[in-house]
Amino acid sequence: MIEFAKNHRPLILVTNDDGIDAGGIKALAEVGCEIGNVLVVAPGAPHSGMSHAITVREPLYLERVHQGDNLIMYRTNGTPADCVKLAMNNLLDRKPDILLSGINHGSNSSASVHYSGTLGAAREGVLNGLPSIGFSLLDYQADADFSAAQPICRQITMQVIEQGLPADTFLNVNIPKGNGINGIRICRQTQGKWMEEFVEHKDPRGQKYYWLTGFFQNLEPNAEDTDEYALANGYASIVPCKSDITDYDLMEQLKAQDYEKEGVRSIRSVGG
Amino acid sequence: MIEFAKNHRPLILVTNDDGIDAGGIKALAEVGCEIGNVLVVAPGAPHSGMSHAITVREPLYLERVHQGDNLIMYRTNGTPADCVKLAMNNLLDRKPDILLSGINHGSNSSASVHYSGTLGAAREGVLNGLPSIGFSLLDYQADADFSAAQPICRQITMQVIEQGLPADTFLNVNIPKGNGINGIRICRQTQGKWMEEFVEHKDPRGQKYYWLTGFFQNLEPNAEDTDEYALANGYASIVPCKSDITDYDLMEQLKAQDYEKEGVRSIRSVGG
Repeated sequence: MIEFAKNHRPLILVTNDDGIDAGGIKALAEVGCEIGNVLVVAPGAPHSGMSHAITVREPLYLERVHQGDNLIMYRTNGTPADCVKLAMNNLLDRKPDILLSGINHGSNSSASVHYSGTLGAAREGVLNGLPSIGFSLLDYQADADFSAAQPICRQITMQVIEQGLPADTFLNVNIPKGNGINGIRICRQTQGKWMEEFVEHKDPRGQKYYWLTGFFQNLEPNAEDTDEYALANGYASIVPCKSDITDYDLMEQLKAQDYEKEGVRSIRSVGG
Repeated sequence: MIEFAKNHRPLILVTNDDGIDAGGIKALAEVGCEIGNVLVVAPGAPHSGMSHAITVREPLYLERVHQGDNLIMYRTNGTPADCVKLAMNNLLDRKPDILLSGINHGSNSSASVHYSGTLGAAREGVLNGLPSIGFSLLDYQADADFSAAQPICRQITMQVIEQGLPADTFLNVNIPKGNGINGIRICRQTQGKWMEEFVEHKDPRGQKYYWLTGFFQNLEPNAEDTDEYALANGYASIVPCKSDITDYDLMEQLKAQDYEKEGVRSIRSVGG
């Protein structure tokens, strides 16, 4: 178990998916240190696209890489979600006041919330009973400038510490790049899809291989209440996201259909 | 692009997270072949706990391992979600009628829906516009017996092919082990949490390491509309799950709070 200097500052758990050496997590830890005592537990290597993955087939290591008065940092070989579990189970003797994940290098708007290790960690925070926020900057570069994003992170973090969040919900915050941010908008997840997702090459042995690439197509570009719309207009977006993904409307509809009918129907050929 | 024997049978895409050699995917492909033409694209190795992860940092390979009249099988080095993308982008010239993922060796009830590669693939199906179902059997053993689960998979698959699903929703189906299944219940995702998640050991160099383990605690064991309750009472459970995870209630509440207020508030010390 770790120990901070004795005080009554908020206890803040910080993780990310770009790895502990990324500029984004340094920027977020700085924001955290202005507000409270910060425990960083983050992957040693980049884990983009890791979603809510957990490590079940190999052992996890925890290595302390920094010990300060109000900042302690651990590196792991695990996923972002593993980092939250390791912190909660093996490092902390009390529940943090908040979990901050990020700042991700690159957007996690729309359905990217599902692929993102940043948001996987935020959902893991919720499953551990923590108010949790994932932050992302719309700049994929390793040397992205997070200075204009930090005040946004600070403001939202303070509001969540003061006002709390429902037990089941985390926040997906995306922030435009550059200094001209127009403000903050509460949004819903944009409906979109990815197109032309792979490029094909041949390896030196002549075998075809595929690299994931492609582009996002916004299926509702004029919907003003979506995160993509807010971001396209220079606003930071906050999408409140549920961990209970039950489709309650469909649940009632399916009950009215014959899914629950006892016994198994005979199989007949469909369509020929 | 692949070609099946010319007929008008439904086109069924099958994947899983336990790998192409697992008994569960063989059982599901058998069910598929009774109904239509089946394309299996599955990981070469187990990918349990991979959630909705995608492979962004290494190239993907596709190797055909079986070509029959109504069953074609490809092995990949990717995640379950990658398999869906590869099939849709690189193998199929028309949209499948349905995506089936599984049958997973082990439960994916409650919040396991978030960790599961089986359900990550099902959500990827939804993002690609496919009616999608993830199937799991409550038996972790490699030699689990799927024969009693197959008629359940068949029945639900037929119903979805005939009646469709909303564009945003996939089904999370869990099936008790053994022959005494009492029927099928439409359910919501159980609220629960994992406890004591790691065991600690020391490696030969004396360094501590951690294995993920622990147990699930049902936080609402008497809630009769949950998947855990149905399964505990011998029923197969169907939870309809949304890909849009926006918390619409909280969205309205947050708008009424001052998150959207222009400008960044001054930072003051919280709690001392």
